[in-house]
Amino acid sequence: MGECFVDRFEIAGAAEGPLAGLSFAAKDLFDVAGRVTGAGNPDWAATHAPAQAHAEAIVRLLANGATLVGKTVTDEISLGLLGENAFDGTPLNPRAPERVPGGSSSGSASAVAQGLCDAALGTDTGGSVRVPASFCGLFGMRPTHGRVPTAGMLPQAPSSDTAGWFARDGGTFAKVGEVLIGEAPGALPSRLTVGTDCFGFAGPGVAEALAPALARLEALVGEGREDLLAPPGLAAWAQAQRALQLAEAWATFGPWVEAEVPRFSYLVARTLMAGSATTEAQQGPARLVRDDARGRLAHLTKGGGVVALPATPDPAPLKNLPLAQMDRARERINANCAVGGLTGHPVLVLPAGDVEGAPVGLAVIGARGADASLLALAQAWEHA
Amino acid sequence: MGECFVDRFEIAGAAEGPLAGLSFAAKDLFDVAGRVTGAGNPDWAATHAPAQAHAEAIVRLLANGATLVGKTVTDEISLGLLGENAFDGTPLNPRAPERVPGGSSSGSASAVAQGLCDAALGTDTGGSVRVPASFCGLFGMRPTHGRVPTAGMLPQAPSSDTAGWFARDGGTFAKVGEVLIGEAPGALPSRLTVGTDCFGFAGPGVAEALAPALARLEALVGEGREDLLAPPGLAAWAQAQRALQLAEAWATFGPWVEAEVPRFSYLVARTLMAGSATTEAQQGPARLVRDDARGRLAHLTKGGGVVALPATPDPAPLKNLPLAQMDRARERINANCAVGGLTGHPVLVLPAGDVEGAPVGLAVIGARGADASLLALAQAWEHA
Repeated sequence: MGECFVDRFEIAGAAEGPLAGLSFAAKDLFDVAGRVTGAGNPDWAATHAPAQAHAEAIVRLLANGATLVGKTVTDEISLGLLGENAFDGTPLNPRAPERVPGGSSSGSASAVAQGLCDAALGTDTGGSVRVPASFCGLFGMRPTHGRVPTAGMLPQAPSSDTAGWFARDGGTFAKVGEVLIGEAPGALPSRLTVGTDCFGFAGPGVAEALAPALARLEALVGEGREDLLAPPGLAAWAQAQRALQLAEAWATFGPWVEAEVPRFSYLVARTLMAGSATTEAQQGPARLVRDDARGRLAHLTKGGGVVALPATPDPAPLKNLPLAQMDRARERINANCAVGGLTGHPVLVLPAGDVEGAPVGLAVIGARGADASLLALAQAWEHA
Repeated sequence: MGECFVDRFEIAGAAEGPLAGLSFAAKDLFDVAGRVTGAGNPDWAATHAPAQAHAEAIVRLLANGATLVGKTVTDEISLGLLGENAFDGTPLNPRAPERVPGGSSSGSASAVAQGLCDAALGTDTGGSVRVPASFCGLFGMRPTHGRVPTAGMLPQAPSSDTAGWFARDGGTFAKVGEVLIGEAPGALPSRLTVGTDCFGFAGPGVAEALAPALARLEALVGEGREDLLAPPGLAAWAQAQRALQLAEAWATFGPWVEAEVPRFSYLVARTLMAGSATTEAQQGPARLVRDDARGRLAHLTKGGGVVALPATPDPAPLKNLPLAQMDRARERINANCAVGGLTGHPVLVLPAGDVEGAPVGLAVIGARGADASLLALAQAWEHA
């Protein structure tokens, strides 16, 4: 237990290139030719053939000189935010060993945080890069939806799925990001909104712990104007995202579940069942909430604008909590993170502060397509 | 896969006694001192300490000379009727190797059917002895509720739980039963009702396959008068039993599920969730249906009466069916078998016929407390 890799091997990157000399790992949701994409569930692994080709994100990193050193633990079929896999164990959170690493890209964050590789690929549908980045004190990003190719990446909820990445330092983070998004770091954002609802929603000590980082961000971007991120409430956005995401997840996994009747953690089975029970009557209003949220984010991020919020509303929970406490932690994270999947806007997580000795990141939401500007922010963060 | 034992060992019975020379196995829901009762789920096993004492049913068999030869595979925490355990595999049904053995007392039935022991203990809440007895061509019995002690047996739904047993021949079956119920075989039943609804509900060929056995039963008991078993419909009884049983099962297992968040087959997780979602508004009417069903059975079995019906409405399904077909099979079995848990009356399964080369048993329901009369029937069945 505590292992972050499910499969260690080495596929050397191109001899030359901007990432030469860097090592990376990939969440076991990305195809590596000749290996089964296990997706964190033994019955998924047992019922799928080895991948025929590398995932496109892996191809890009290899072609630019980075070396792939293994595949990492993930929450089962990417359904989870805490990083506890009942089959594969809980990867170590080296910054807070008694706490979860966050998920579902748990092993990728753990491997980077432990220094076992320079960068790692994750996926983020409802928070699966942002949460482990926040909990492990890493740079992490969910790019604009559709910006980094997801070919060869196991889908969950395609309208929200993204391929993201982690690094320990802003320079490495930006270099890897430049290859993945295919664009050099751009101009820094020029207008900052501080999400008062998000900071108010955060747990004890989080706003205080993030205050110095927020001041650094203001120094880089310009003084933050305060406003609501989600006027109808974070809970309303979360409810809409949950209905849409879980219905899509059931569309993705339901046929396999119904054919193979696989094993899952009770928590994962319950999530799938919630998806199977989502009705069109719930999804219609959820789509309206999504349209509204997209309008709100377009407004907040126009003209070089970004929005700052805690990357997670709390630091990582302790490991092995009872179900009710896991549910509470997950629901709070969902409320904070729903904006990503719902709007498709890019979200950068910056290492920012500690609460009770455990990391919490600062999230920065950019305009759709303004990923290069968030890379510039990550680069500058080192020197701010 | 196909293994019926989870743990093989030998605990010798008393040197003398009516069961001297006989071997038996126990479903891994019965405590054996010094061993963990695994209940067919790895996380149950991992979160429970070894039993301090033998279950009372085991004590009785050992004290009367039978030797315990191991613990057998069960559907996870006794929730299942097909006998496919996603962790432990599917015990062989030697009478129909491509089909399931039936569950949840799958390994006990398989071990007896394979001749690996003379008898075996199972549990029957909603059909878990009757179904594998039917599918494997064995004698099996669910005794009157409360008649065989359930101390040291893992509960599921206490108002329906019973400890039952299997044997290949009626003589051994009656000898073991005499020890378990503490009463010698009594007078044969004297009045027979043939459940026209149950025979009508059964699948193609079942009524025809059971016709010779029914004629033997009539020769032993007296000509069968035809009548409905369940005037409100087998489906209505099944719905009531399901609501009550699953609510109790959640009361039994919910605290553990919520504390440990264990792994399950998707099917088992879904069953537990159905239990957790059962409302008092569903249970109130279900209790009235139960009262009504008890009245009906008291009426049908008074004065030495028994009711005959197919032990299962169909022969064993094929292994590894998709979820929708498993659901259909399970729902049909539930409808046929709900009478047991709902009324608490004893139900004997007699090996009876074959459909498409696979066994189907004949079930005989007796009056509450008339278990000894059913033992006499099993004894006589050999020579009828």
